[in-house]
Amino acid sequence: MTVLSDLEIARVAHMEPIGEVAARAGIEPEFLEFYGNDVAKISLEAAEAHENRPRAKYVVVTAITPTPLGEGKTTTAVGIAQGLEKIGRHSMLALRQPSMGPTFGIKGGAAGAGYSQVLPMEKLNLHLTGDFHSITAAHNLLAAMIDNHLHQGNELDIEPHSISWRRVVDINDRALRNVIVGLGSRIDGVPRETGFDITAASEVGVILSLATSLKDLRSRLGRIVIGYNRAKQPVTAEDLHAAGSMTVILRDALKPNLLQTTENTPVLVHTGPFGNIATGNSSVVADQIGITSADYLLTEAGFGSDMGAERFFNVKCRVSGLHPDAAVMVVTIRALKTHSGRYKVVPGKPLPEGMTLDNPDDVWAGAPNLRKHIEIVRNFGVTPVVALNLFPGDHDDEIDVVRQIAEECGAHFAASSHVVDGGDGATDLARAVVAACEEPTRFRYTYHLESPLAAKIESVATRVYGADGIDVAPAAAKELAHFEELGYGHFPVVMAKTHLSLSHDPALKGAPTGWRLPVREVRAAVGAGYVYAICGDMRTMPGLGKHPAAERIDIDENGETVGLF
Amino acid sequence: MTVLSDLEIARVAHMEPIGEVAARAGIEPEFLEFYGNDVAKISLEAAEAHENRPRAKYVVVTAITPTPLGEGKTTTAVGIAQGLEKIGRHSMLALRQPSMGPTFGIKGGAAGAGYSQVLPMEKLNLHLTGDFHSITAAHNLLAAMIDNHLHQGNELDIEPHSISWRRVVDINDRALRNVIVGLGSRIDGVPRETGFDITAASEVGVILSLATSLKDLRSRLGRIVIGYNRAKQPVTAEDLHAAGSMTVILRDALKPNLLQTTENTPVLVHTGPFGNIATGNSSVVADQIGITSADYLLTEAGFGSDMGAERFFNVKCRVSGLHPDAAVMVVTIRALKTHSGRYKVVPGKPLPEGMTLDNPDDVWAGAPNLRKHIEIVRNFGVTPVVALNLFPGDHDDEIDVVRQIAEECGAHFAASSHVVDGGDGATDLARAVVAACEEPTRFRYTYHLESPLAAKIESVATRVYGADGIDVAPAAAKELAHFEELGYGHFPVVMAKTHLSLSHDPALKGAPTGWRLPVREVRAAVGAGYVYAICGDMRTMPGLGKHPAAERIDIDENGETVGLF
Repeated sequence: MTVLSDLEIARVAHMEPIGEVAARAGIEPEFLEFYGNDVAKISLEAAEAHENRPRAKYVVVTAITPTPLGEGKTTTAVGIAQGLEKIGRHSMLALRQPSMGPTFGIKGGAAGAGYSQVLPMEKLNLHLTGDFHSITAAHNLLAAMIDNHLHQGNELDIEPHSISWRRVVDINDRALRNVIVGLGSRIDGVPRETGFDITAASEVGVILSLATSLKDLRSRLGRIVIGYNRAKQPVTAEDLHAAGSMTVILRDALKPNLLQTTENTPVLVHTGPFGNIATGNSSVVADQIGITSADYLLTEAGFGSDMGAERFFNVKCRVSGLHPDAAVMVVTIRALKTHSGRYKVVPGKPLPEGMTLDNPDDVWAGAPNLRKHIEIVRNFGVTPVVALNLFPGDHDDEIDVVRQIAEECGAHFAASSHVVDGGDGATDLARAVVAACEEPTRFRYTYHLESPLAAKIESVATRVYGADGIDVAPAAAKELAHFEELGYGHFPVVMAKTHLSLSHDPALKGAPTGWRLPVREVRAAVGAGYVYAICGDMRTMPGLGKHPAAERIDIDENGETVGLF
Repeated sequence: MTVLSDLEIARVAHMEPIGEVAARAGIEPEFLEFYGNDVAKISLEAAEAHENRPRAKYVVVTAITPTPLGEGKTTTAVGIAQGLEKIGRHSMLALRQPSMGPTFGIKGGAAGAGYSQVLPMEKLNLHLTGDFHSITAAHNLLAAMIDNHLHQGNELDIEPHSISWRRVVDINDRALRNVIVGLGSRIDGVPRETGFDITAASEVGVILSLATSLKDLRSRLGRIVIGYNRAKQPVTAEDLHAAGSMTVILRDALKPNLLQTTENTPVLVHTGPFGNIATGNSSVVADQIGITSADYLLTEAGFGSDMGAERFFNVKCRVSGLHPDAAVMVVTIRALKTHSGRYKVVPGKPLPEGMTLDNPDDVWAGAPNLRKHIEIVRNFGVTPVVALNLFPGDHDDEIDVVRQIAEECGAHFAASSHVVDGGDGATDLARAVVAACEEPTRFRYTYHLESPLAAKIESVATRVYGADGIDVAPAAAKELAHFEELGYGHFPVVMAKTHLSLSHDPALKGAPTGWRLPVREVRAAVGAGYVYAICGDMRTMPGLGKHPAAERIDIDENGETVGLF
């Protein structure tokens, strides 16, 4: 049997004109703006126009605690969408847009794998329709207006050291983490220390993912707090008269992008990289459009259920008003084996030798992580479906262990070979999703918005992560009190913690117990509408490795892109 | 009579589907990639496929030395294109893409004016199809790879102080002119001084405007010199293995964008802002596509004939192999009056009072500037057409003075009221262009490439600008010798000087004589393929004013963009 690479599969796949893909999803041509033949933006009027159509079952796709390699959440989501079509149900998929910067780091593509990919993969991994460039531009315009305000006399009396609005680039560029700007002479601005984050960590991007309309986008941008004046009152983007221009820069970026899978099922790709401090979910408007365009809308939440899915439930669902019918929990044998604590997976190196052997005991040893993630989802009142993403070389008795764990927990289960077989390999999983969606749900949040901020952080730590409690650094506690004075007390919370453990310590595998979550620092993303707690050393600007992917990416003699995947 | 604003005219204008505009230009659907209904990118294969078609007459549109307000070169170019259609000739227009950053500064739109505009104006003034974002991304990826190289051990032995490759943003952000990067701890890169330019000043953008194919783009990017190693040998983007990734980032940006005028004539918009050190011309590939798609191809060169047109003739024409049949010299009464030296025009303030009075003597007093520009064009062997861009309130006897000056010089002449009347106001001018193109031309460059660099700089200064000679600073002279050792001696030269005077001193109006051009510094843009000489204090990163346009740009209650124009 000839095994084709992801790139080869993508190249030979038949792409339908995107207008036809849209038509099958019931989206009329007047709502489409084409970007080439294979990508279209969808205007937000589509959601209004289709308001009275039947609503899709709403399924969030999450995962257990992944290895640093990722466990194929995107490809599994694609597989389910394709599998649903195979069993006669129409699907719509809402995925997060990958950040371009990391593509040139170690990552390679983020378009799925094998016969369950999103097309066109090259566009998906690069500019797509330029939404991230717009985020960068709007973010940095505000930064320029802040420094210009200081330079022009600082009428708002901004305390320069309080300015928390940094600049962003969509590139892994560690040298920009900490910079001094405004050097030179008097005409070159006011010197001060600041820095750059990766665009994925921009509050502007989170705002785009949470905004429900152009007007809501405009108001949220206006509410962005960039720092404080000398009277310790917040200074906003509105105060700087920047929010209107930012909105104009972002107006096209607010429209979700329509692509297709290798089997031509529709895929909305819009916003949502993690950036450690963002929500790590695709946009509210994509889901609002998707919910009336299929029988099943699958939406992807980044990393494990403690990460993207928790933010999906507690933050995104509050904004969208949409509640999921089921949650798909993506699992791999290799991830479960890693949670035994017996193996260490390092990106760029082969898997540890013993890990590929037939050893059901390793899988059992990792079970606590899966059980905990099933419990997390169930605590939100949502029906879990365990989706085993099969890899070549997975052993039958190991697969059976995963089934047993899922069944013990009362969760739906199916193994899926979509990477090798496309939708045909995911029909069992699709049926499991359909079955799960028939069960009644009683959706509930982890906390009430009226609780104090610290209590909300503690709820997530104890009720979701399984911590015994939280240890808030004194400065952070003071800042939480300040936030409550300023009226941010009713915000939901987002935890900036590692995705490699249920705890804040990436070395703790399985389902750690007997630990407390340290909260080093807290910040308010007032435009996005949440307070975030930094737990451990969370980076908002990655660096490049010694030999980054950028060194291999090129064009070949025919002008085709190589090295991207 | 109701006078409509530019914005109102643009809003009520009937836009044709861009596919139909392309069809009338003989560009088949298979060469188009749509970006919405009103913009398409054209693949470079179109030029190859149409190689054997009849070639258009090739007309460069330039100007006399402008006031800081600009003299309507874009709108006049649009007017001629529309006027040619009115007299039964097919026109294609190749314009430069405006830089987004300055749109939020003082500038407002750059889409023409009145009934001679380019549509859609909002896209034109903002992201368009994202080409500038791609330039920014590719430029900054190289910068990140340089700093990463230092951080990872500096195998190439790069001398950090020699690194001339800065970063870019498409925003007026003076605080970024001089920065220190790499601060923090050992894992945050190597501290060093550097800075940011505006994207318009990126060598990557110039490379895009000069590249003749994807392969040529790839080679030029590879040849970029970012600095020197400790043995004083150049270090290139190829040495850093960055050029392949940069090419992949830029592959769509290499394709020209097709838009239309308010009268639906086709317009290619591609690359070319001035950035002081760039060529300030639209792309070679746009002209290569345009030359077989009409009877007349009009291409725009920035600022006066000493600036964009000189670079068009001496740099761009050498690369493209295309030689112009005529040069349109855009003139306004207000600019000629300014060259009398009797008035000072300040942007954002009303014109000086006396300037709007009927005073033919003021126009005569400014004549030397027009005469000199006619001579400049004629020295390249190209037939000049003086195009008087009429403003409301221009007086008939003043208009007649311009006609007399042009006729004295033996140049074709027409006044044009396209701003008020569209193509119907530009038929005389269109006929003048047609007549000029019938004359034989004997195109010649200002210098041979084999001359020494200093001699080439001197040729431009004396034979184009009218200087008595050049004064090269000692360090610059040493650097020129170094460039010749390195093999850059055969490059053409580009002069970074003010556009507000034929000299390096913006205060010297008319046609200054008895002056020498100081060359403060020289640099090599090896990827673009020229050496540039900095004459006076030329800035590569603008700042925002006290109340920039960004404060006024917004959406209104209907979600429409306001304040952009």
